Amino acid sequence: MLNGKIIGRVLGILLILEGICMLTIIPVSLYYAEGDFLPVVISTFITLAVGVLMSQLFRDHNSTIGKREGYLIVTGSWLIFSLFGSLPFTIGNAIPSYTDAFFETISGFTTTGASILTDPESMSHGLLYWRSMTQWLGGMGIIVLSLAILPILKIGSMQLFSAEVPGPTPDKLHPKIRETAKRLWLIYLGFTLTEALLLKLGGMSFFDAICHSFTTMATGGYSTKTASIAAFNTPYIHYVITVFMVIAGTNFSLAYFGLHGRFRKIFTNEEFLFYISLLLAFIIGVTAVLYFSQGHPLEESFRNAAFQVVSIVTTTGYATSDYCSWGPFLILVIFILMFTGGSAGSTGGGIKMVRLLLLAKNSRQELSRLIHPNAVIPVRLNHKVVPQNMLYNVLAFIVFYFLITGISAMIISAMGYDLASSFSSVAATLGNIGPGLGEVGPTMNYAHFPDFGKWFLSFLMLLGRLELFTVLVLLTRWFYKN
Amino acid sequence: MLNGKIIGRVLGILLILEGICMLTIIPVSLYYAEGDFLPVVISTFITLAVGVLMSQLFRDHNSTIGKREGYLIVTGSWLIFSLFGSLPFTIGNAIPSYTDAFFETISGFTTTGASILTDPESMSHGLLYWRSMTQWLGGMGIIVLSLAILPILKIGSMQLFSAEVPGPTPDKLHPKIRETAKRLWLIYLGFTLTEALLLKLGGMSFFDAICHSFTTMATGGYSTKTASIAAFNTPYIHYVITVFMVIAGTNFSLAYFGLHGRFRKIFTNEEFLFYISLLLAFIIGVTAVLYFSQGHPLEESFRNAAFQVVSIVTTTGYATSDYCSWGPFLILVIFILMFTGGSAGSTGGGIKMVRLLLLAKNSRQELSRLIHPNAVIPVRLNHKVVPQNMLYNVLAFIVFYFLITGISAMIISAMGYDLASSFSSVAATLGNIGPGLGEVGPTMNYAHFPDFGKWFLSFLMLLGRLELFTVLVLLTRWFYKN
Repeated sequence: MLNGKIIGRVLGILLILEGICMLTIIPVSLYYAEGDFLPVVISTFITLAVGVLMSQLFRDHNSTIGKREGYLIVTGSWLIFSLFGSLPFTIGNAIPSYTDAFFETISGFTTTGASILTDPESMSHGLLYWRSMTQWLGGMGIIVLSLAILPILKIGSMQLFSAEVPGPTPDKLHPKIRETAKRLWLIYLGFTLTEALLLKLGGMSFFDAICHSFTTMATGGYSTKTASIAAFNTPYIHYVITVFMVIAGTNFSLAYFGLHGRFRKIFTNEEFLFYISLLLAFIIGVTAVLYFSQGHPLEESFRNAAFQVVSIVTTTGYATSDYCSWGPFLILVIFILMFTGGSAGSTGGGIKMVRLLLLAKNSRQELSRLIHPNAVIPVRLNHKVVPQNMLYNVLAFIVFYFLITGISAMIISAMGYDLASSFSSVAATLGNIGPGLGEVGPTMNYAHFPDFGKWFLSFLMLLGRLELFTVLVLLTRWFYKN
Repeated sequence: MLNGKIIGRVLGILLILEGICMLTIIPVSLYYAEGDFLPVVISTFITLAVGVLMSQLFRDHNSTIGKREGYLIVTGSWLIFSLFGSLPFTIGNAIPSYTDAFFETISGFTTTGASILTDPESMSHGLLYWRSMTQWLGGMGIIVLSLAILPILKIGSMQLFSAEVPGPTPDKLHPKIRETAKRLWLIYLGFTLTEALLLKLGGMSFFDAICHSFTTMATGGYSTKTASIAAFNTPYIHYVITVFMVIAGTNFSLAYFGLHGRFRKIFTNEEFLFYISLLLAFIIGVTAVLYFSQGHPLEESFRNAAFQVVSIVTTTGYATSDYCSWGPFLILVIFILMFTGGSAGSTGGGIKMVRLLLLAKNSRQELSRLIHPNAVIPVRLNHKVVPQNMLYNVLAFIVFYFLITGISAMIISAMGYDLASSFSSVAATLGNIGPGLGEVGPTMNYAHFPDFGKWFLSFLMLLGRLELFTVLVLLTRWFYKN
């Protein structure tokens, strides 16, 4: 039997947390006085009220959270956050269509950054702040989930790669979760404040600096400007954001080790080395093409190459340059990079570095197995043998990922979109990136999709953010059988 | 130590066989008297002479063929067949560029069907016959290899799925290979002659009937007409070819069982059921779109849908209709179908049905493993547990397949091709299909590629035909270490 009460209670408590976060919009609204005060207050009140109601109604003193409850809570929390988080946009009619408001909000909480806004500048500061904050909260949520909660509940596949979590290892469950979550939260906050400070020093307004550091650390990619980061034409700002995107795409456990001076842990971590090598290789390649073959100045070539490669690989989705004008070769490179993703335990989405690394290792081993069929040649990660069930899981993940991409691209193309737009809109939402190619390129947006398309892409964002299985498992009959 | 002598001897014998096949062009040349007699005779003489020379030079009485020799012989035989098989085209200047002649020939022997000819009708009958025959020989070669030779040598990954081979099972190696090969050869010949007869009855000329039955059974797709099968505007012909393409994409062991009345073997074979279900699902879907949404007549919709779906899935590559004019949705469907492929032990190329089926099964199991993490839920195929190493092999295969597709698409796009043309030209050559989308669509050809592009795509055809590993293993350092 599913324990519905505990699910209701946890979601209620999470809603209260969301309401408290919404309270922080109020000073922004008051300061800028752009008419969004009432919608914000009403939204906050509704969210808090429903949260308190739910947490009180569903009291259950003898409660334990099992696997099934865990899956429902995880998926449910992203849904309920988006449902209530869209209220500030929809109540004051800042975004007239509810479909659009929901799309914009779930795109925030899933740290995707796909937007239906044609002109963010026309939105009030309070709502722009909340829009950035949805990403920041979503990023925080996924880190706490993947590094503090899931490894202990042993849920889904996300915990598979997060075995090495910093923090104490007592026998009791709660202290560990709380302690680990607190440390991660502090690191996340620290990086965010540092980036905001550096951006402010580079000439950004205080408001823009906060909003962009929110969406950088979440690898979210929402900008307060239509032109995204290209609106800030300062190389310094581009470099600062590039560096923090790289950090946001790194496993946060490594940041913890780094802050404690244990750098060996970082530089012997195979996923990190793979991530950095892949970034460097593509940055050098793209720089070379922009410089030698397209004649851009060297510094500009390097800066745009580094920015866009990091932005796509980490699944942030900012733009300093319209890569759709970079010619067929680089467009294809960008398209392929959409199928990478950040590191495990980072805020990045997509397939993730550790999976790509395991796939690469298994493929390499297979060639040597062909020559030495009787030798047992296991796949190792960080000097440990990777168990069979983990490889089977990666295999299933990759198959679902491409199957979902293929079927979804068919569905989008049935709405009249061409090959590049169909595939890239799916890759960009399922991978939590944001912008794609063609009609969803970095200078475009998602406003032109029909309503069904927006709901469908919203579903893909959720699916991608929760690494497929957490959501897919809810759609199986096994889940409901005892 | 590699036994170079035995490799040379086997390749020499194979060259003699190719020379003997070339002899059959001579009557065609004489009958049509279109000036290709001399080039054909010279090519045949060179091929036979080199073959005899090699087989005599490399005599080795104490010879055994090991794994390494096996790999080199397999890859070497496709290369040497293409090298000498291109002589008839190049000696008389029928195809002036040697690059083009080699491309056309390896595209034949790998049963790909990608052509550089802008106007096949202008070529002599003798050479058109040889062009069709390269595919027929290539198809025969791959069946004998995958069902008779590799399962015994235990080479590569192709034999993994061909365990159930018809034929006697004596202890001695040679009688089994010879006996199995003979049976397969008879079945292949039987189907070819039956199809040719049916096509002749449908109004095709004797010459066209032979050529097209050669290239249907090989899932090759070379036609004697620029317009491909669309040149024969008879529904009967389209249906006959569709049926034989389906047969050619089926495991030839099943044909053997069918001819012996053991139909249960066929209709309980999971790969076969998966293959037929997938074909039916897509035929119905595409028919519905062509009929309801594009207003084509029902019979014509069904016929074109069936023909094109079967042509792409079996990797034949014939066309009765320009699917590039079918609108974005169906173009995308065709693109996705390029990543399927025929059954194991058929002449079809691509990823192959059995791999897709295993991937689907593992993914399904993974979802139930997530809910019952302690239950051992193995993947089964035809009621037998699939061993771990086979799943690892499939995983590696799929990763190499997409990695090679991605990198190759980058290389092609660097020559200035757009996303659809780059990806589809790679998918169509690596998958041994032939035509793709955009600039390599069914009404186009491969003549416009620069020379480097043609050599590169030729390499992809070989790689795809020999299921990646057989060729890739030659590129590893382990291969050359003792």
